[in-house]
Order: sequence, then C-alpha cells, then structure tokens
Amino acid sequence: MKACVFCKIVNGELPATKLIEDKKAVAFLDINPVNHGHILVVPRKHYETVMDIPGKELGKVMEMVPPLAKAVTEVTNADGLNVFQTNKPCAGQTVPHVHVHIIPRHKNDGFHFGWRQGRYSEGEIDRMQWGILKALGE
Amino acid sequence: MKACVFCKIVNGELPATKLIEDKKAVAFLDINPVNHGHILVVPRKHYETVMDIPGKELGKVMEMVPPLAKAVTEVTNADGLNVFQTNKPCAGQTVPHVHVHIIPRHKNDGFHFGWRQGRYSEGEIDRMQWGILKALGE
Repeated sequence: MKACVFCKIVNGELPATKLIEDKKAVAFLDINPVNHGHILVVPRKHYETVMDIPGKELGKVMEMVPPLAKAVTEVTNADGLNVFQTNKPCAGQTVPHVHVHIIPRHKNDGFHFGWRQGRYSEGEIDRMQWGILKALGE
Repeated sequence: MKACVFCKIVNGELPATKLIEDKKAVAFLDINPVNHGHILVVPRKHYETVMDIPGKELGKVMEMVPPLAKAVTEVTNADGLNVFQTNKPCAGQTVPHVHVHIIPRHKNDGFHFGWRQGRYSEGEIDRMQWGILKALGE
C-alpha cells in the first residue's frame, strides 16, 4: 500500500520513534499520545482490520504487547493500562492499517469510555451464539 | 484461582454462552454487552493483566480474535468493531483475569471514548523512547 502511513513507517519511508521490531511487527511511540508513553504496534504487512488479518498473524503481532506494556508501565509509573484497537471509521479507526494502541493509564487521568452494560432478552443470547457458531462454520 | 469468575467459566463451574475454546483460550458472550454480540476471550490460565502474561501466551489467545471478529460482524451486520482490553481498576478492569473484549459497532450507536491527542515537548519523545528501551533491556 503505497499511500499508507503505517506501511511507510514500517518501510522506513516516514520517520517514527521506533521501539522494537521483528519479522511480523513494528512498535513505535504515537506522536499524539492519549497519555505519554502511548505505543502503537502494527503488522508489517498491510491489513485493513482485524476482520482481515489471519489469526496466527495477529497472534504474532500481539506477542510484542506484554513486554511493551510492562516496560511502559514501569517507565511512566502507570496505575493501569489499556490495549485498544479500532476497526472501520465508526469504531474510531483513522488509519486503515491494523494497529494496536497500548495506553498507560493514571488515576484520574480524565480518559474514559462511555462503557455501558446492555442486556439480552429471553432467548436472544442463545440465538446470538447460534448465529456466531454458524458464521464460524462450527 | 478458586474465587475468579473467569477461571470458573473456563473450568465449567459457572455457566457461560461459550463460542469456541482451545488449549489456550475460551471465548464466550458477555452477558452485559456494550452492543449485542459483545464477546470476551480469556486465557485458560489465570493472569491478572497483560503485564503478567507471557507474550507468546497472549499471542495464542489473540489468534481467536480475527475469526470471531469476522463472524460477529457478519451476524450483527456491524459497521465496525473494537478490540479492547483493560488492566487494573483505573483502566476499567473489573475482573482481575486477562480478558479481551470484542465489541461490534454500529454507526451512531452512542458508544464512544474520550479520545484525545496529546503532545510531547521538544526532546520528550526521545527520552520516552530511551526509557522504554532501557526497561526492555534493549
């Protein structure tokens, strides 16, 4: 993908503050961090979303997350951490190349989600299970 | 962890609407979904946070995410999807056993994050890079 910003960072055509890289993934600091220490991990190969990347390939990319999460927690003296990933604009994706956010968190840092607890009516959760299993081909 | 709700689900001591499971992970529907089709993927083994789980083990757990993301997007006719993971209470973690949220999203579904774009002052991002590399032992 010639026009993709993250492909350009992976290929060294655009600068980035890189942390670690291996055969499958590259990790670098987000220049507009939610909190300082905010890291992005991207697969070397271009996939738009997690619906497109093969499971084993996402697995390889995610192997980088625990050591980075541990290191950035230590360095920023964080109280917690979020791993966050967006797919398609309605979910907040702005660069159409799979990327995993690692965001160190601090008590009262003002970053929060509109979390909510929905419900299923009688039988609805079983129909959802059935539908997903069917889509999975199980 | 005898008292852990997710360990009990993994071991079959508590009921759950399970979707798929393998040697390393179990996926089931969240009973209080942000949106219908909200899935949780948990490692079989108890780790509190992504700072505690070995990289390779998180990788194995995450291999399940793409097929589930694809299936639930199809079934719920979603416009997008978030993968989301909380560590420690200040980051929104309520069950201290690593769990990955897969949340199908719809345009104008009212679920949003207090996303913000911070900045680094001159030299700050380089010091952050240096600190993280040092903590990683690179």
